[in-house]
Amino acid sequence: MKNPITELFGISYPLIQAGMIWCSGWKLARAVSEAGGLGIIGAGSMYPEVLDEHIRKFKAASDKPFAVNVPLLYPDIDQLMEIIAKHEVPIVFTSAGNPKTWTSFLKERGITVVHVVSNVKFAKKAEAAGVDAIVAEGFEAGGHNGREETTTLCLIPIVREAVDLPLIAAGGIGSGKAMHAAIALGADAVQVGSRFVTSEESSAHLAFKKTVVDAEEGATILTLKELAPVRLIKNGFFKDLQEAYARCASPDELREILGRARAKRGMFEGDLEQGELEIGQVSAGIHEILPAKEIVNEFIQDFKHCQERMAKISASL
Amino acid sequence: MKNPITELFGISYPLIQAGMIWCSGWKLARAVSEAGGLGIIGAGSMYPEVLDEHIRKFKAASDKPFAVNVPLLYPDIDQLMEIIAKHEVPIVFTSAGNPKTWTSFLKERGITVVHVVSNVKFAKKAEAAGVDAIVAEGFEAGGHNGREETTTLCLIPIVREAVDLPLIAAGGIGSGKAMHAAIALGADAVQVGSRFVTSEESSAHLAFKKTVVDAEEGATILTLKELAPVRLIKNGFFKDLQEAYARCASPDELREILGRARAKRGMFEGDLEQGELEIGQVSAGIHEILPAKEIVNEFIQDFKHCQERMAKISASL
Repeated sequence: MKNPITELFGISYPLIQAGMIWCSGWKLARAVSEAGGLGIIGAGSMYPEVLDEHIRKFKAASDKPFAVNVPLLYPDIDQLMEIIAKHEVPIVFTSAGNPKTWTSFLKERGITVVHVVSNVKFAKKAEAAGVDAIVAEGFEAGGHNGREETTTLCLIPIVREAVDLPLIAAGGIGSGKAMHAAIALGADAVQVGSRFVTSEESSAHLAFKKTVVDAEEGATILTLKELAPVRLIKNGFFKDLQEAYARCASPDELREILGRARAKRGMFEGDLEQGELEIGQVSAGIHEILPAKEIVNEFIQDFKHCQERMAKISASL
Repeated sequence: MKNPITELFGISYPLIQAGMIWCSGWKLARAVSEAGGLGIIGAGSMYPEVLDEHIRKFKAASDKPFAVNVPLLYPDIDQLMEIIAKHEVPIVFTSAGNPKTWTSFLKERGITVVHVVSNVKFAKKAEAAGVDAIVAEGFEAGGHNGREETTTLCLIPIVREAVDLPLIAAGGIGSGKAMHAAIALGADAVQVGSRFVTSEESSAHLAFKKTVVDAEEGATILTLKELAPVRLIKNGFFKDLQEAYARCASPDELREILGRARAKRGMFEGDLEQGELEIGQVSAGIHEILPAKEIVNEFIQDFKHCQERMAKISASL
């Protein structure tokens, strides 16, 4: 499937696995890249030496393209970037920060740069910063998210209208049908998070994977908007937040309740009640844990069937 | 275009205009129905005698199918239903209430019944109540909305999975591309609100229409979740709500701030600062006021172009 994204990354399918803290190490990235998509090592939950190890392991196990996702607010970002440069990582996805800061450093080293945004304004800023492609992520996505609450269905057409770069849709993409929908809206590719959280190769705790599989509609919510909006499962920790909101707690109190390392506690250590369980709304449509390769294949088959169905529908128009 | 919805309603295109308070009288309904879609008279903002007049005027001006939208919490609903039965209105869309209450009354009179839901649970209840079709409306939609905040992209696949009825997607559908996306996700048709608010035939105040055309991303928000969640434009009235939220106001205080007739004041009388301006997120992608017929034609052309583009993309897969 040739399009601006498959050609930019040198991959077979316009399907990119999201960089997700505590879920996306080299094993998941390798499985996705080997299946024809783009695998991403999520550096957000890794110490520099851990990232170094994951990149080395990926490269020893696969010669396919891959990427590293770097949240730009990461405290030791200089070290991460040096490791990325040292290993000649082909593609870097940056998020949660100003794309101006690191884009030229990466581009000068021949690295393809993609920046994640949740609105048109930042899409334009990323384009001005010289990135090669943009991920536009809608309100339904798991984890950290934008303040405008624009859904993928509304976001993709206006970002497509505003920038000329290759465009990747994220948020709510759980099947080949949704991939078809996102490309119809103007995206060149999709980025898939929640589905890969529940892949066999994901490093998420099995209890968290099972929680995602069992999640029904309305199980997640975008909360902590006073700090940084994040979509998570409504568990015991969220109930504590709700009580705080009910008494009109200040942002400082919310920060104290949140504390540190809650995401690790929930997603990696499997504390389902007091951990932070970041996942997208699309979890309501996820029903099983599968190998990443099967997820990729299912997306592509589903996409093709969808196209055949749409061709029939259109023929009668 | 033959599919379960076009056949159920006897229309040419699977494109339905939403029933919108203060916007959708007989003129808009007629324009949409005459253009090959399904026009709807929105009874929510009409006294019974006003609805009677609008139905009579529609029938005098057009012999195309049309519908009336009835919010089931309407105080004089018995009178509305008698008027609908008297005029042999072919199709009724019910919303905001229990579909059990009126479905059999309508079905016994040969009227096709469609119920609007925002989650899977109510979709199943509507199916059990014997309705003929379902509208599933996502978080991005304008006006009153569901508590789960499920976006159209996530909602349509899970409703499609849960019920066998003809399915209409609503929320965020502003173009033929979005129509294509919604049908790819499993819908049989789309319901379009915001685009028709800005049609020439809409009875919205011109100042409100212009506000919608000028609205940028992030201009709307889903608020008043403690009463009934509603998506509206962030204007002076919303700022008052924000101040109330900041002081942890009770639902009663919020109700007092809301007061009565704010929607009329905003959308019909054009008070842009203190009125309630209900509109969807897709307003960010709406750039002009057009005749409803042109909106319908644009949707269908855009849908066809989208299909041609998708066929090329898929051919390379």
